[in-house]
Amino acid sequence: MSSSVEPTNLMEAIVSLAKRRGFIYSSSEIYGGFNGFFDYGPLGAELKKNIRDCWWNDMVRRREDIVGLESSIIMHPKVWEASGHVAGFTDPLVDCKVSKMRYRADQLFFSPVIVDGKIVGYVSALESEKTTEDLQSAAESFKRKKALQGTLTPVTPKDFTEAQEAEIALIPSPATGEPGSLTAPRAFNMMFQTNVGAMSDASSVAYLRPETAQGMFVDFKNVVDTTRVKLPFGIAQIGKSFRNEITPRNFIFRSREFEQMEMEYFIHEDADWAKCHEEWIVWCETWLKSVGLPDSHLSRYTHPKEKLAFYSRGTVDIMFKYPFGVQELWGIAARGNYDLTQHATASGKPQEIFDETTKKKFVPHVIEPAVGVDRILLAVLCAAYAVEDVPDEKGNIEQRTVLRLSPRLAPFKVAVLPLIKNKELLVGRARDLYTKLKRKYAVFYDDGGAIGKRYRRQDEAGTPWCVTIDFDTIEKPGDTFTLRERDTMQQRRITEAELFALLDEHVY
Amino acid sequence: MSSSVEPTNLMEAIVSLAKRRGFIYSSSEIYGGFNGFFDYGPLGAELKKNIRDCWWNDMVRRREDIVGLESSIIMHPKVWEASGHVAGFTDPLVDCKVSKMRYRADQLFFSPVIVDGKIVGYVSALESEKTTEDLQSAAESFKRKKALQGTLTPVTPKDFTEAQEAEIALIPSPATGEPGSLTAPRAFNMMFQTNVGAMSDASSVAYLRPETAQGMFVDFKNVVDTTRVKLPFGIAQIGKSFRNEITPRNFIFRSREFEQMEMEYFIHEDADWAKCHEEWIVWCETWLKSVGLPDSHLSRYTHPKEKLAFYSRGTVDIMFKYPFGVQELWGIAARGNYDLTQHATASGKPQEIFDETTKKKFVPHVIEPAVGVDRILLAVLCAAYAVEDVPDEKGNIEQRTVLRLSPRLAPFKVAVLPLIKNKELLVGRARDLYTKLKRKYAVFYDDGGAIGKRYRRQDEAGTPWCVTIDFDTIEKPGDTFTLRERDTMQQRRITEAELFALLDEHVY
Repeated sequence: MSSSVEPTNLMEAIVSLAKRRGFIYSSSEIYGGFNGFFDYGPLGAELKKNIRDCWWNDMVRRREDIVGLESSIIMHPKVWEASGHVAGFTDPLVDCKVSKMRYRADQLFFSPVIVDGKIVGYVSALESEKTTEDLQSAAESFKRKKALQGTLTPVTPKDFTEAQEAEIALIPSPATGEPGSLTAPRAFNMMFQTNVGAMSDASSVAYLRPETAQGMFVDFKNVVDTTRVKLPFGIAQIGKSFRNEITPRNFIFRSREFEQMEMEYFIHEDADWAKCHEEWIVWCETWLKSVGLPDSHLSRYTHPKEKLAFYSRGTVDIMFKYPFGVQELWGIAARGNYDLTQHATASGKPQEIFDETTKKKFVPHVIEPAVGVDRILLAVLCAAYAVEDVPDEKGNIEQRTVLRLSPRLAPFKVAVLPLIKNKELLVGRARDLYTKLKRKYAVFYDDGGAIGKRYRRQDEAGTPWCVTIDFDTIEKPGDTFTLRERDTMQQRRITEAELFALLDEHVY
Repeated sequence: MSSSVEPTNLMEAIVSLAKRRGFIYSSSEIYGGFNGFFDYGPLGAELKKNIRDCWWNDMVRRREDIVGLESSIIMHPKVWEASGHVAGFTDPLVDCKVSKMRYRADQLFFSPVIVDGKIVGYVSALESEKTTEDLQSAAESFKRKKALQGTLTPVTPKDFTEAQEAEIALIPSPATGEPGSLTAPRAFNMMFQTNVGAMSDASSVAYLRPETAQGMFVDFKNVVDTTRVKLPFGIAQIGKSFRNEITPRNFIFRSREFEQMEMEYFIHEDADWAKCHEEWIVWCETWLKSVGLPDSHLSRYTHPKEKLAFYSRGTVDIMFKYPFGVQELWGIAARGNYDLTQHATASGKPQEIFDETTKKKFVPHVIEPAVGVDRILLAVLCAAYAVEDVPDEKGNIEQRTVLRLSPRLAPFKVAVLPLIKNKELLVGRARDLYTKLKRKYAVFYDDGGAIGKRYRRQDEAGTPWCVTIDFDTIEKPGDTFTLRERDTMQQRRITEAELFALLDEHVY
């Protein structure tokens, strides 16, 4: 009955819907926005909470081997020295001394311009979907301007971290177009820094956490000592993290303030870590599908061994096909016992478990599945968004926008719609049903406008079911309502008890 | 059957239980802790989440006139200029030039030492539960040391903000005991400051929000434009806030990182604000009682008119009797239209609503109920904590520690306990029940140790019900379990369906 319409620019359409329906706003919009920060509006706040709650239920409450934690965002600065973040959590930055602009070296691309086999100059371009084309046309333009004859070799893009010392002086700044003003890359720490206490000097420096994971390591012994966990077991946490990204981009995909859902799964030093790693990858894939992400958009990326940190045994990212490309959604890392060992050394407090069998103490190893709430939310919106040609009540074709959100995630589970609003008995029944549903579920009550228009409004908000209280409800026996399903748009009659059973089945 | 035992130091007992059972740890404990920051362990994370969820359900999902929001912690710095926080969100600080110690002026008390009606010197003391006694004994000691004869007038404590200029040089520093080193109080801004972007200079300064409320004001127009709200309506938010307290204290009551639940209720400029204000005070009181805080510990404090900010029409605090004194729990402020007007002026974007009746635009007024999650959690722990003399199975008197948490807040709703763990049929039934319950509720499974000991463990964790699967379950008809109630310790037989009905009634 319906056919899907591919929007010309899916990302633009999603950003626009997100704003228009109150899912996502730019932060501080009345002040012109604030780059890398976002606010979640009424529908967005519900969707985000539902993602968190689903994860928490599935990860913590429904498992016996995982407990929760909420550690502070600002921790002792020694935590970040021990973890390696103070020294190593950096991006390479390049300054343009003329324009005062700064660039991430790995996002600034360049190529020599080669004419008849000889390097005659350099061109540069910022990373985009068409970096190579940009460099190629810059090279052609360069050749033209210099009035050079001969054959231009196709450009060979490299990023600025690969630039030889001698090349740096020859690569033009993207800001000025002229060479000579770019500096060599220097390490820029991505942790936001602040000062705690009345003094504002080096002694009071502290950081906003760039990940929640260190909380689980620092509290490892506390959790072991105050609960009844036994290996293997996990500690899970949901919370805000902060990274001072130089170029936040792709909407909420890479922002400066974001929310993480991380879990550290501690295993015996002799355990089969590869098997456990694979099990967690599968668990995460299954979970993503359970909240509505289609298999077709998911893939795996295995980090090459030679690019792993020395302590890392393996990292696999679950990738999602966003409109702007296939990008990392969920990283599952086998980190050995690096983190606990680092904290044991730095704090002088052993981070060990006693093995009852071997009577030996050891530092457990860890598998870490880490995902961002905002990235899941964006993936969910992208996967759920559809524009369809559908027939209206008179059989004319019209377009509808629909968010096919899973019932567990949908901001509202059901909308209660009295067919008309000036019939007391009908409205009374609708209010009664609404009140009963509201005790357990997020429900929307809407009595304004034609029923078809009200359905469309709920389609856009992702509400899986609408219940219309109509004349049959009050005039015919059985006390039934019209249940209208979002995805099929099919309607059938349903009783109150059946409606509660339907919700009970799909919403938890 | 049981009698309550008053612990000699209730606060100490609660801090100790909170640590021992994994409710609350000091942040970064292995590094010696970090003053003013706390972590919530497995039970604490559940309790905190339940407080948030109860509030969100009651405040947002169960009301038609309130929508949710999640704005960013770091907002555009102009937000905090317009709100007045950059200029005015300060504490008065006093330096001791000799010891380099800093004190909050309003927590540093002093008194003249008066002998035979003449001022012979000054004494000082830091605020405590016995500030006056400390000053009195300091004055006596002062008189003795100076070998003065005559009658000592009782001390008259004032805080340092009230010190006359001439007095400042005469008041001894608490650090050195000698006068002459304390400075006049100066304003110290309590917002944590950071830098956003690659530059680390004045142009990039931003703040961690000291309250979530400004998010609701800055997004006011966005919410109005993208939802179907009509006055009166509210915008609610839960999230972390940060204040650089000079003297964090009273455990999690006054910390540097904390979580707020705030709501801005927008009303017509001509609405009866006092009536609405009173309604919200009552709503908040009712809510606190619904999550288990006893009436006897709650009271109201009305801020005196002369101490209110010029724009404020009235503020009432709901106070809670903590072990360390009666302290503010929930502030309900009638703030006029100050905040929206400030942002309209600073941003140049009108923050108005169109009145369909009068055909006039106006800036809505607001009632703001603001409460801290951590303060509620502490109040809940204090109210729930009890030590009782109870008879054990043999009739001997023993002590039990019990947290009488409301079922809505309890980390685990029910514990499933197989009477013995080596009887397959019995364990199978227990596992089956556990699995069914876990789909909807946080449940604990425990098969270790004597049943009485297991009950005690759950008492301490605040679990309202234990279900024991025993021989009657598998041998007698009816498939019933022993339900043991935490507070009464009474036991009765219950079926699975009755158990689900019990939970359904009390947990939502």
